[in-house]
Amino acid sequence: MDRSEKDRVKIFDTTLRDGEQSPGISLGKHEKLEIAQQLARLGADVIEAGFPITSPGDFEAVQAIARGVHGPVICGLARTSVQDIDAAWNAVKDSERPRIHTFIATSDIHIERKLQTTREDVKGQARAAVAHAKRYTDDVEFSPEDGSRSDVEFMAEVIQIAIDEGATTINVPDTVGYTMPDEYAEMWRRLYALLPELAGVTTSVHCHNDLGLAVANSFAGVTAGARQVECAVNGIGERAGNASLEEIVMLLHTRESSVGVWTAVDTHEIARTSRLVSRLTGYPVQPNKAIVGRNAFAHEAGIHQDGVLKERTTYEIMDATTIGLEANSIVLGKHSGRHALRKALEELGFQVEGAALNTAFKRFKEIADKKKKVTALDLEAIVSDEMKQVPAAIELESFDIEASSARSPLARVRVRMPGGEVESGSFTGDGPVDAFFSAINAAVGREARLKEYHVSAVTGGRDALGEVTVLLELGGRLASGVGVSTDILEASGKAYLRALSNAIPDDAVAEAERVLEREVKETSAP
Amino acid sequence: MDRSEKDRVKIFDTTLRDGEQSPGISLGKHEKLEIAQQLARLGADVIEAGFPITSPGDFEAVQAIARGVHGPVICGLARTSVQDIDAAWNAVKDSERPRIHTFIATSDIHIERKLQTTREDVKGQARAAVAHAKRYTDDVEFSPEDGSRSDVEFMAEVIQIAIDEGATTINVPDTVGYTMPDEYAEMWRRLYALLPELAGVTTSVHCHNDLGLAVANSFAGVTAGARQVECAVNGIGERAGNASLEEIVMLLHTRESSVGVWTAVDTHEIARTSRLVSRLTGYPVQPNKAIVGRNAFAHEAGIHQDGVLKERTTYEIMDATTIGLEANSIVLGKHSGRHALRKALEELGFQVEGAALNTAFKRFKEIADKKKKVTALDLEAIVSDEMKQVPAAIELESFDIEASSARSPLARVRVRMPGGEVESGSFTGDGPVDAFFSAINAAVGREARLKEYHVSAVTGGRDALGEVTVLLELGGRLASGVGVSTDILEASGKAYLRALSNAIPDDAVAEAERVLEREVKETSAP
Repeated sequence: MDRSEKDRVKIFDTTLRDGEQSPGISLGKHEKLEIAQQLARLGADVIEAGFPITSPGDFEAVQAIARGVHGPVICGLARTSVQDIDAAWNAVKDSERPRIHTFIATSDIHIERKLQTTREDVKGQARAAVAHAKRYTDDVEFSPEDGSRSDVEFMAEVIQIAIDEGATTINVPDTVGYTMPDEYAEMWRRLYALLPELAGVTTSVHCHNDLGLAVANSFAGVTAGARQVECAVNGIGERAGNASLEEIVMLLHTRESSVGVWTAVDTHEIARTSRLVSRLTGYPVQPNKAIVGRNAFAHEAGIHQDGVLKERTTYEIMDATTIGLEANSIVLGKHSGRHALRKALEELGFQVEGAALNTAFKRFKEIADKKKKVTALDLEAIVSDEMKQVPAAIELESFDIEASSARSPLARVRVRMPGGEVESGSFTGDGPVDAFFSAINAAVGREARLKEYHVSAVTGGRDALGEVTVLLELGGRLASGVGVSTDILEASGKAYLRALSNAIPDDAVAEAERVLEREVKETSAP
Repeated sequence: MDRSEKDRVKIFDTTLRDGEQSPGISLGKHEKLEIAQQLARLGADVIEAGFPITSPGDFEAVQAIARGVHGPVICGLARTSVQDIDAAWNAVKDSERPRIHTFIATSDIHIERKLQTTREDVKGQARAAVAHAKRYTDDVEFSPEDGSRSDVEFMAEVIQIAIDEGATTINVPDTVGYTMPDEYAEMWRRLYALLPELAGVTTSVHCHNDLGLAVANSFAGVTAGARQVECAVNGIGERAGNASLEEIVMLLHTRESSVGVWTAVDTHEIARTSRLVSRLTGYPVQPNKAIVGRNAFAHEAGIHQDGVLKERTTYEIMDATTIGLEANSIVLGKHSGRHALRKALEELGFQVEGAALNTAFKRFKEIADKKKKVTALDLEAIVSDEMKQVPAAIELESFDIEASSARSPLARVRVRMPGGEVESGSFTGDGPVDAFFSAINAAVGREARLKEYHVSAVTGGRDALGEVTVLLELGGRLASGVGVSTDILEASGKAYLRALSNAIPDDAVAEAERVLEREVKETSAP
């Protein structure tokens, strides 16, 4: 197909910024870096890596991505204040292609109720922010927050100011997920009519899914002329989330000949990207989710419809191989060596060397002893699981659990503290998991409270790896952890200990971060 | 608001037909009846209760719904054959408002590759089917399958025939989830132009979500003039599912003043309907799912944004109470009596009397002993759990499980067989759940294979009820079971035994059903 650059739609991924603002997601620096590396393999044009002013942790993660991830533009979010923009710049400046993304609300409801200021002040803030960002970099994006509910003429004035000051991308978000496709397209048509200068910048859409229309609205924006779509893997994000990256990409891919626009995404990386994000965030993907749900491709779900057998296209408009569902058939067994493991991991896109390879090999052997075949999915789970390790982790030494219908379950545990000392605890609880977690609390001497507990299987069958996600609260701080094992109780204990380790950083830093995070999250955005 | 009947959009729920065709869902008659009762409370206009020719079980469930559920039209699906239509009629005829829904594909790819016939033959089959159905009832719906990929002029000819023979609803499905909003609206405009007779019938949309556009396409159809939307609770259905009932309803509700159409659905029943369907199908709802996901309403997820506190509408376009999320605050404790339980269940919409009330009360007391507060969500789980009981169930008598990091887990179980005899078994497995299930297999003397295993928490916190869903395979037959307990191992054992009980009906009947199901599922539709 004849593809021209003007018909190319850039994919701006905000999994690590808007996605990471979802309740209960708390990604560490290494996890964010791993996701960013995968987004680069996927071919995302822009990675919004975080909101650097919100916490030292966020700043460091954005910086690590700016330094370590090559290819995509690396973008940091900032409100209009000098401090925000300075933090964003300092975080992204080591990237080969840094971008600052600054925003301020233009809807009257946000201006009056949230910002408690005036339209004139908003104009002034937008002007100052873009001008300040422009001093650092040529690549500046500006978003009028709650754009879809803004008075279009006033919003156009603000956008005009941003363009005059040098903004190179203009993104109009549907912040609250309120608009409808025709309405959003009409808004764009009015903006193009009011602002001929829009022809000289990249126009961008950012749609939320509150009414189930995020992808359709994004698509309507593209049809109206936008050439950047802000989206997140698995559609995660504030409330009902953002437009799903995989849905917008596969929509444009599948209907390219009708629509006439294209993306540079390597669709074969979609399935793996989805699994990685689901695993590291602890956010499951429902079976009936478009593109990446377990059932999205009928024959993946084990159904062999007569129609499909006779002619695939009678019921399938996409091929599972296109999103990488059947891309690799790696299978290792208990006799596979270190070299085979390393080669398999490389094929999966993981560069694992030295001590990390030793650890991965040890885990692989443990799993291979229990499962006859270790598949690509199992390897991904093992490696991602190892990546969840936090530096000062409390480790599970041993456990004994007795569960019976005749009496309350009893758990005994021994844990190794970061300093090396071994502590033990025991507890009799309502259920074996409850007893296990309470015994860990007793051993560690902390009163963490379980908020959420989720179990899923990595692959099918009796010897499947179980993946347990735990969300707990300790002193007002939420922290999550994931554990993987063929033993659901062992996976639970590991997940709980990792969450607990995440929840116990240096306490003063933790408190400062918490206050700052709350303050900035209050602004949400965009 | 001034609402006229011509602006009313009918909600046609296909959770029990297209939804139930999702892999791994196998609802029993009582579960289907319970869902249908809830759909009636929700105010669905039409319930497509099943595809009666596909199996005796499906036939009986449709019949039970036709007899027991009052208010909505009760609809049965049928291909064009006399046998299909007779079965559909016999299943729905006892309803106060029976409908027969017949379909045949009109796209060339389906006609040539799947039906292996000609356009002329399709016309003849459509004519005969509608005429035959019309002999039984005035309320006949006709669907040209794969309509969105059909030659519009040929499809219009087939629809003309169906209308001539007396079809009162014409539904044009996007069977493979391929169309786009503007394209689908344009298709409708051409159909209306070609067929002035469409003004005299109800026009209907049925959209699949393969590209994430099911709701947007349905909405585009409504904007173009359609006045019935076929959809499913939680968006379940073939592959990526159907348009989500809750999304289309809340879209029309939230944007009613802009769009000018309305539905008669009681939105306050949405959250409960979603939970019931998720629980009985074993299909989880992802946290970022629009409307019914855990995070869809920010303050439900525990976030208190400054903006939201200052003025709810800065970030929220819907109120959680509108979908019934905070509708009831029922809390019972260990001292609550049978009368209080019965009253609470009534408030929740469950009519529980006699022996069922005794069983529910016994379960309630067990749970109340372990949890301080038993909430409405817990009660729903307990009652739904009891409803999952199958007539000839194998019951869990007792179990003992030892799990340890030092040795392989050991499980010992005793089960009571349907005949009353008690059998025991033991097993040492890879994990405690594996050991438990293998010990059950040993006790029952069957070699069932675990296919899927899923755990979720009913409510938050350490003493949460855990809900385990098991999908297993026995002799080529898939069966699912759900178990609820504060003890995850006990819940697992119950779920496994229920699935196993479901998988062991009279073997001859089972084989006949299996062949029939396969044969009919091959046709998919629509």
